[in-house]
Amino acid sequence: MLEQTVQAIGPLDLNAMAAARDHQARLALPPESLGRLHEFAIKMAGVAGRPRPAVRDLGVITMAGDHGVAARGVSKFPQEVTREMVVNFARGGAAINVLTRHVGARLTVVDIGVAGPVLNIDMDESGGVRFVSRRVGSGTRDIFDGPAMTREEAVRSLETGIQVFLEEKERGLDAVGTGDMGIANTTPSSAIAAAMLAVSPRQVVNRGTGIDDAALDHKVQVVARALEVNRPDPSDPIDLLAKVGGYEIGGIAGVILGACAHRVPVVVDGFISTAAALLACGFHPEVKHYLFSGHQSAVEGHRLMLDEMGLEPMIDLGMRLGEGTGAAFGLSILAAASRIATEMHTFEEAQVSGPENDLG
Amino acid sequence: MLEQTVQAIGPLDLNAMAAARDHQARLALPPESLGRLHEFAIKMAGVAGRPRPAVRDLGVITMAGDHGVAARGVSKFPQEVTREMVVNFARGGAAINVLTRHVGARLTVVDIGVAGPVLNIDMDESGGVRFVSRRVGSGTRDIFDGPAMTREEAVRSLETGIQVFLEEKERGLDAVGTGDMGIANTTPSSAIAAAMLAVSPRQVVNRGTGIDDAALDHKVQVVARALEVNRPDPSDPIDLLAKVGGYEIGGIAGVILGACAHRVPVVVDGFISTAAALLACGFHPEVKHYLFSGHQSAVEGHRLMLDEMGLEPMIDLGMRLGEGTGAAFGLSILAAASRIATEMHTFEEAQVSGPENDLG
Repeated sequence: MLEQTVQAIGPLDLNAMAAARDHQARLALPPESLGRLHEFAIKMAGVAGRPRPAVRDLGVITMAGDHGVAARGVSKFPQEVTREMVVNFARGGAAINVLTRHVGARLTVVDIGVAGPVLNIDMDESGGVRFVSRRVGSGTRDIFDGPAMTREEAVRSLETGIQVFLEEKERGLDAVGTGDMGIANTTPSSAIAAAMLAVSPRQVVNRGTGIDDAALDHKVQVVARALEVNRPDPSDPIDLLAKVGGYEIGGIAGVILGACAHRVPVVVDGFISTAAALLACGFHPEVKHYLFSGHQSAVEGHRLMLDEMGLEPMIDLGMRLGEGTGAAFGLSILAAASRIATEMHTFEEAQVSGPENDLG
Repeated sequence: MLEQTVQAIGPLDLNAMAAARDHQARLALPPESLGRLHEFAIKMAGVAGRPRPAVRDLGVITMAGDHGVAARGVSKFPQEVTREMVVNFARGGAAINVLTRHVGARLTVVDIGVAGPVLNIDMDESGGVRFVSRRVGSGTRDIFDGPAMTREEAVRSLETGIQVFLEEKERGLDAVGTGDMGIANTTPSSAIAAAMLAVSPRQVVNRGTGIDDAALDHKVQVVARALEVNRPDPSDPIDLLAKVGGYEIGGIAGVILGACAHRVPVVVDGFISTAAALLACGFHPEVKHYLFSGHQSAVEGHRLMLDEMGLEPMIDLGMRLGEGTGAAFGLSILAAASRIATEMHTFEEAQVSGPENDLG
């Protein structure tokens, strides 16, 4: 399934993009005056393979998993918070619930590897959220000592992401946003970033939920040691995911691969989702062309990964929460760009005079 | 009416802001991890005078007016475009229609000074838009030769803005965005900016709808001459508006003053709206505290005005259209910040463990 999905990924549709560009130039406004909204509309045309794709059905898929490395004191919060937050998501009380409601996106929360007993969440109790229990494992193993998971588990986490994407696509999905929940997950994400960008851990490790200087130094050591002990092969994304990744990181990468294969634009959230996107790019060189960066995260290292993929974030509100909160804003901006392409009148339709020839 | 409105403007409510800050700190997320959304929620509390104001009813008020200086070849578009665009607004086909629909905001379009015969727009024909005909004049006079309008007209344009704000407030309005339409209106806006910031026209004049280098040089000369001929008093905003302003600029400043007096947060659009905001700040030192900058405009000079008022724009998508399009995005972000404050669960409500004491 993973192989078939990757093989289905192709280039952007240049004809659709050219038609989209022509249409944008006919809209009743000064040339290019909506800035990046024009660029987004043209790129979405290339992704969808149609000049003016309607982007109405929006969804955020938030993957939750735990990390053995949490025991190394790399986070300010105890591991049980992952589990407590999944319950909070299902009840509709978290930031991602508020923001998906605000932008009119569905929210799907996946337990792909939370630690402890299996979470039983009654769908009737869930506050408008789809909850999916699809555990690959009960938290990863500690990357300080060895691999996070087996190679088989890595493939299963990727395929779980593809599967959940397909289920959401079945419900109608014109654009998808990615989200994460997992105490300590900036640590494996930093390890993936350091390995794939070939930079030192210091350049990508960050304060995550807000650790102090001493804890930050410690976290750099943990990431450095995880890379030393595991020696992941950066040219093999499955190896990288298995050795220093996490179940939810694999799940997010799977969602991205599924979306690329089915020509659905992806809005990537912050640090963890962007590490997963980098991993997904390791499977196929075209993946990065299907991605939009929802926002610039306030944590260090995020920008380096974006630069590697040639992505410019849509907004920068100084956020660093994860959950898919930055992706929610980005989805709303993509939907706006799509509505400009589909609802706005051209100079001709609006009977508005164009620019005069003797100026500009 | 103008005087009473200005006198009603007071400081932000510091108690409400302190209560809002406390509440934000109890939300179930890492401290300050929603970045500027926390700041917006706290500032809105200060504006409204309540710890957690609901920001549900959103409205953009777009003021349209013409400019005698259009005859000097300062714009790429002919003057009739102002009138044609007002018709386009009423029919629902313009960018601001699409974006207000997208963010769930009402749109009110005011003919405060379009040139030519009075526009008769049947409210039944208007595509969900409220159209208000309230002309102060049929286009301003050419500021190249003398004042744009009389002092009485300047006061009337300000009071028209206050009046329209009050009518919208009556319909329910928790946050208001400003917008403009007026061919050549970056020219008077540049004159206002140069005068109030005490900088040379070259520093604030820009390409507007997209003029070339030669036309830009010419526009700088026009603004310089308008300031020389008219010698506006930058400490007297009515004098400044009358001599080098425009009807829609006065109208926007009036909306802002009305909103401040009634403790409603204002999202200021791009270059023209920001010049109007600067003008409004000339009436009362507290005005700037009620303002949010919806977006960074791509035109030169916008940043200088924002810096003067201490405003940091919410987003930067490279837009430079006006109409209120940047304000529409900003209103949606304010509404999101308000929903975070009113709908999200605290650590206690969500039964989520807080940070551990031994870290960070």
